[in-house]
Amino acid sequence: MLKIAIIGFGNAGRAWANAIEDASGIALVQIYNRNTIGNSRHLALLTNDLSALKPADLYLVCVSDRAVAEIGAALPFENRLVAHTAGSLPAQALGNKNRAAVCYPLQTFSQHRAVAFSQVPICLEAQDDADLRTLETFARALSQNVQYLDAEARKKLHLAAVFVCNFTNHLYAIGADLCQQQRLPFDLLRPLILETALKAQTMEPSSAQTGPAVRQDLQVMESHLAMLSNDIHKQLYTLLSGAIQQHGNKL
Amino acid sequence: MLKIAIIGFGNAGRAWANAIEDASGIALVQIYNRNTIGNSRHLALLTNDLSALKPADLYLVCVSDRAVAEIGAALPFENRLVAHTAGSLPAQALGNKNRAAVCYPLQTFSQHRAVAFSQVPICLEAQDDADLRTLETFARALSQNVQYLDAEARKKLHLAAVFVCNFTNHLYAIGADLCQQQRLPFDLLRPLILETALKAQTMEPSSAQTGPAVRQDLQVMESHLAMLSNDIHKQLYTLLSGAIQQHGNKL
Repeated sequence: MLKIAIIGFGNAGRAWANAIEDASGIALVQIYNRNTIGNSRHLALLTNDLSALKPADLYLVCVSDRAVAEIGAALPFENRLVAHTAGSLPAQALGNKNRAAVCYPLQTFSQHRAVAFSQVPICLEAQDDADLRTLETFARALSQNVQYLDAEARKKLHLAAVFVCNFTNHLYAIGADLCQQQRLPFDLLRPLILETALKAQTMEPSSAQTGPAVRQDLQVMESHLAMLSNDIHKQLYTLLSGAIQQHGNKL
Repeated sequence: MLKIAIIGFGNAGRAWANAIEDASGIALVQIYNRNTIGNSRHLALLTNDLSALKPADLYLVCVSDRAVAEIGAALPFENRLVAHTAGSLPAQALGNKNRAAVCYPLQTFSQHRAVAFSQVPICLEAQDDADLRTLETFARALSQNVQYLDAEARKKLHLAAVFVCNFTNHLYAIGADLCQQQRLPFDLLRPLILETALKAQTMEPSSAQTGPAVRQDLQVMESHLAMLSNDIHKQLYTLLSGAIQQHGNKL
């Protein structure tokens, strides 16, 4: 039974904790957080004292990117397997006191929303084969989709994730703003949002492209621009429409 | 039994045809298309001769926005109920020879992909109550989500749809490009794309926002910009990150 300690208990830490407790073959032995206010499920495992951390086979660092180096330096032990979960940081961001590794889940974590880890790609990097096997045992207990990526590939993948997840979500937010301006419920857009994502599960996005830009329908595009009052929305409309047309030409 | 004729047999026309044939209470009696090469399911219903169009309770115009006026003028009959399916056009785009109406489905249609209409918002507009009741009978046979929107509201909704569907799909295409640059399979991004859309089914997009921009993580954002070689991708990254930060401040 692989013993796991989680360090950092925000949205991501909570998602990991729930997934680990629901998995077999791995055990969550402790959770460190600066403050120990947690939900009841994990209260007994929480500590706010780094020096109280028990021995574990893997310390999973789930703090924000900016706090990774600080946590790495503050750990009161040496030569143990410590993995951060950040897409954009090299393993070495944790320092060299411990055996630094990476266990990056390609997923978005929000409060109050459970994530099924089974399909989530978990991207691993370690300094030697033994550590990689430990990480692999851990990741396979949670997901069927385990990947081995070096820092450069992981960083690029994280960048791609920003486009398809964070930026996409902001386009949803703009859709919600536009609905609100017209006193229409955002609910109207939800089936379309889902179908657009479902299409991308089986089709290549470039061949799934629809809309006025790819149809070169200048009249509709001009009337859309005239309707937008927010300057950033106008700029986005122009830039994205141009990008769609240019992408189409490239193919 | 309401008799429906479809005019225009591209991706949208095919999706309507399949949905109508699968529904009860409405019957597809004919399909007009400039050329009559169709799939075998609908071959018997196809004509390329407008003057051969049989009487129907509703003529559903599924041609591209630019061809709506031309088709409206070319119809060889008068005073029948003719609805176009375009989000951005007023009913009057069909001319005044027939009783012009609108039946706009808020969905994206691609070749080789069946769309379940049952959750699709169908937005109706007609010139009198009798026509609206006919449209309503038609739309309710296909979907549980029937809406009554005037031209202005429908146009705004169509604009919102461009953001959450067409532009979102282009962000997926950028994700695919970035994966390809690193020789990573696009499959890696698919679970994240789906989860992002599923989150939006129950959460407000503004409260579901994650990523470096909303966390104000300048270091990650700078390293992302340095990784982007395509100038449009750089501009989009900067503009969307700024929009996310500004949106966050507004709330």
